[in-house]
Amino acid sequence: MAPPDLVAEPRIAAWNRRVDWWLTGLAAVFLAAYAWQVLDTSLPPAGRDALEFVLTGTWVVFVVDYVVRIALARRRWYFVRTHLLDLVILALPMFRQLRVLRLITVITVLNRQLRDDARGRVLFYVMGAVVLIGFVASLAVLDAERYAPDASITTFGGAVWWTITTISTVGYGDRYPVTPEGRLVAASLMVAGIALLGVVTASIASWFVENLRRTEATVERELDEVSADVDRTEVQLAAVLAELRAINARLDALERSSRPS
Amino acid sequence: MAPPDLVAEPRIAAWNRRVDWWLTGLAAVFLAAYAWQVLDTSLPPAGRDALEFVLTGTWVVFVVDYVVRIALARRRWYFVRTHLLDLVILALPMFRQLRVLRLITVITVLNRQLRDDARGRVLFYVMGAVVLIGFVASLAVLDAERYAPDASITTFGGAVWWTITTISTVGYGDRYPVTPEGRLVAASLMVAGIALLGVVTASIASWFVENLRRTEATVERELDEVSADVDRTEVQLAAVLAELRAINARLDALERSSRPS
Amino acid sequence: MAPPDLVAEPRIAAWNRRVDWWLTGLAAVFLAAYAWQVLDTSLPPAGRDALEFVLTGTWVVFVVDYVVRIALARRRWYFVRTHLLDLVILALPMFRQLRVLRLITVITVLNRQLRDDARGRVLFYVMGAVVLIGFVASLAVLDAERYAPDASITTFGGAVWWTITTISTVGYGDRYPVTPEGRLVAASLMVAGIALLGVVTASIASWFVENLRRTEATVERELDEVSADVDRTEVQLAAVLAELRAINARLDALERSSRPS
Amino acid sequence: MAPPDLVAEPRIAAWNRRVDWWLTGLAAVFLAAYAWQVLDTSLPPAGRDALEFVLTGTWVVFVVDYVVRIALARRRWYFVRTHLLDLVILALPMFRQLRVLRLITVITVLNRQLRDDARGRVLFYVMGAVVLIGFVASLAVLDAERYAPDASITTFGGAVWWTITTISTVGYGDRYPVTPEGRLVAASLMVAGIALLGVVTASIASWFVENLRRTEATVERELDEVSADVDRTEVQLAAVLAELRAINARLDALERSSRPS
Repeated sequence: MAPPDLVAEPRIAAWNRRVDWWLTGLAAVFLAAYAWQVLDTSLPPAGRDALEFVLTGTWVVFVVDYVVRIALARRRWYFVRTHLLDLVILALPMFRQLRVLRLITVITVLNRQLRDDARGRVLFYVMGAVVLIGFVASLAVLDAERYAPDASITTFGGAVWWTITTISTVGYGDRYPVTPEGRLVAASLMVAGIALLGVVTASIASWFVENLRRTEATVERELDEVSADVDRTEVQLAAVLAELRAINARLDALERSSRPS
Repeated sequence: MAPPDLVAEPRIAAWNRRVDWWLTGLAAVFLAAYAWQVLDTSLPPAGRDALEFVLTGTWVVFVVDYVVRIALARRRWYFVRTHLLDLVILALPMFRQLRVLRLITVITVLNRQLRDDARGRVLFYVMGAVVLIGFVASLAVLDAERYAPDASITTFGGAVWWTITTISTVGYGDRYPVTPEGRLVAASLMVAGIALLGVVTASIASWFVENLRRTEATVERELDEVSADVDRTEVQLAAVLAELRAINARLDALERSSRPS
Repeated sequence: MAPPDLVAEPRIAAWNRRVDWWLTGLAAVFLAAYAWQVLDTSLPPAGRDALEFVLTGTWVVFVVDYVVRIALARRRWYFVRTHLLDLVILALPMFRQLRVLRLITVITVLNRQLRDDARGRVLFYVMGAVVLIGFVASLAVLDAERYAPDASITTFGGAVWWTITTISTVGYGDRYPVTPEGRLVAASLMVAGIALLGVVTASIASWFVENLRRTEATVERELDEVSADVDRTEVQLAAVLAELRAINARLDALERSSRPS
Repeated sequence: MAPPDLVAEPRIAAWNRRVDWWLTGLAAVFLAAYAWQVLDTSLPPAGRDALEFVLTGTWVVFVVDYVVRIALARRRWYFVRTHLLDLVILALPMFRQLRVLRLITVITVLNRQLRDDARGRVLFYVMGAVVLIGFVASLAVLDAERYAPDASITTFGGAVWWTITTISTVGYGDRYPVTPEGRLVAASLMVAGIALLGVVTASIASWFVENLRRTEATVERELDEVSADVDRTEVQLAAVLAELRAINARLDALERSSRPS
């Protein structure tokens, strides 16, 4: 799902364009089913099974998408090598303990869509990404912690509050995860916070470079004008030389005609 | 209250200019009444009612200001669409649970005034904004938490201390909000902290761009001089060509006059 | 003690140059006496009184320095108005409760010396400033907290540990101040942390601008060369015109001499 | 181990090139033995002694490397003075209490290798450095805290979790070091976190300067072209003057020849 060298892989690029919206929809379905499963504690076993079926089903589709992209790749081994992280994130959730990693794929897909929609409006994108990541992290940490002994995160409200105090790096410590899965979510959330800060810094930096480009463009335009002027000068000088040579030729003729007389 | 496209809305711009100071005064009155209500716990019911009347009254004036601006707008729907957040912040406090949101409007108005007063002096502005936001957050969190069971923020001193540890993202965790309203205040405070950091970064960035502009200006001025020199060269060359053509013409005449002889 | 408009106040500038080292020494003496008083709990009352005498004495000298500078000022009221913060910091410690503020003057003086010594070596300066501020804050918080009920900062080691967790904004919350004075120290420490970050950012920024200056200088030098070339061209063209006019004059003469023949 | 003035010390530079890989391997061996000693609590006394022998042995080699470099130095005292920190870090671990400082040398060597491998790929380097520093800090804090009374960091999992919450400056406070050695590790970890942030900022800054360089290069290239054009103009003008002087010479001759007639 990372941006591959699409110029060298036109078939994957075409596939991506075709399935992009479907994958986004699928990620949204996965997230909705996951949220329902986590938040609705009064769900009967049958409903729980149905949601589990949806979650497994969408997961299988993500795996199929990856396999198809390998099949379409020209340089197959190169593709697998450069998309190893995707493979790991798709394969690891087979183990029950690491099912929380499925959310990384879902966030990656939804985040890409968000980034495409928000092109240029960084504030909008950052807000969207924080809400998305915060919502998913709150669900995941609640799912992981809820029934753990000594858990301090046992309600969705508490999970949201914990997410806010963590992503802002305030960390009161009134609530914190105690299970390995919950701590994995916490670590991801901290990385996400630092990454978001990086996006903000990078966007300020790119705004700078745009300014630099404009300065460069102005100076280059002025230089082009000067260059054109100098070129015109050269043409004029060529004309001057031509006239002078004509004069010299005429003077030669004059000299010759005046000498015999 | 966001900066609207005032060029396209001259009537709103005129209205804003006229009511700007009144709104600032109103926000100050609101804040004073709110602070009194929160801090003076020995207030008799009659005094409390009087303050409540002031708070509701100023609130109604803010709503009226919004309605007038809609009425003055040329492109009414566009105005409402681009000022949706203002509408939400003005409408939500109708619900008792969300009355704390009134403070956002008050801070927005006072902050705008502060920004206009501090134009260019970033340190002064940042200090003012931190004091304003910190004071309001301390009042709001105290108002929300004070009578909650298990609350750790029960005095104004404690609320100020909590505000300092939160906005600096230190977060000892000796005090933290436990009510939904208090946590809303906490989340806003964290966002404010990050936003203030953004203002500092942006001001350093703008100082850069000013430097860039100066470089650009120097280079452009030098380029203009060179350009003027080259233009003068062209004028001189035109004079040279004119002289040469005159010479050629005379030589023609000379030739003609010398040939018959 | 802020950098005054020394060009307009030559007498204060001269005074500053003369007393600079004495004030630095005095600040060091104050800090040493303060550290001794705080750290040596087995000090007999007589020793304690002696240290108190040193602390009060150095303080009086700082006040005298301020008064002398007012006396030397040409625009006396302007000086007082622009150095109001210094006045406040010097006057407030008269109240026993606010004696901790004396340390701000001491840090300001020592920090200025450090900045002068470290000119250009930002890393060195930042390390020095962190150690200085951290040491003073550890002493001050220990002095304030030590005998408070429920205090968690009761040893110098614990105070240093608390200072480290606070200035890095980690804030575990295993130790935190509970007295107003201790919290004043904490708030100052958080501001210092943010200010140090600002110094680092500003130094990276200034390194940038230096780079910009160099680019500017290169382009300007090249432009100067082009400008000189164009000027030479103008001189050459003037010579060309002079020659041409001479030719025309001669041709005039030729014409006149050939017509009568 | 800091980058010495290698141009002035060719023998040390040659030595560094020869032993570079050996030191990296040695650091890896040290780290592996240290990890084994800390993590394998069921190690028999004989195994523990063997690991201790490896640790002491590699340490001695690092000391020998330092001594050899002093011996190779041309300006011996200058070398020792500018590498004082290395000396301190190598000498202090002789005291049992400060043995944790050995890890600083190990991290320095491995970090240098990582930086050389990752040249240009900042994200890769930052991730590698965080993992390296985090792993070492987790081992060191566990080693220091494990058997302390009131310790909250007693398992490797707990140590890793504490490292994550500390380096991200979240600091919940559910776990924190209580021994002096553990707190030394914590302080180093906080400095490392700030340093890593500095690396990220510096890399964004260097990316900028590269952009600046490219702008400079473009403008200079255009200026060179203009300069060349102007030079060509000068050559043309010289030709014009030569022609004109030839004309004048001929006119002189013409005049002379026409006057006697």
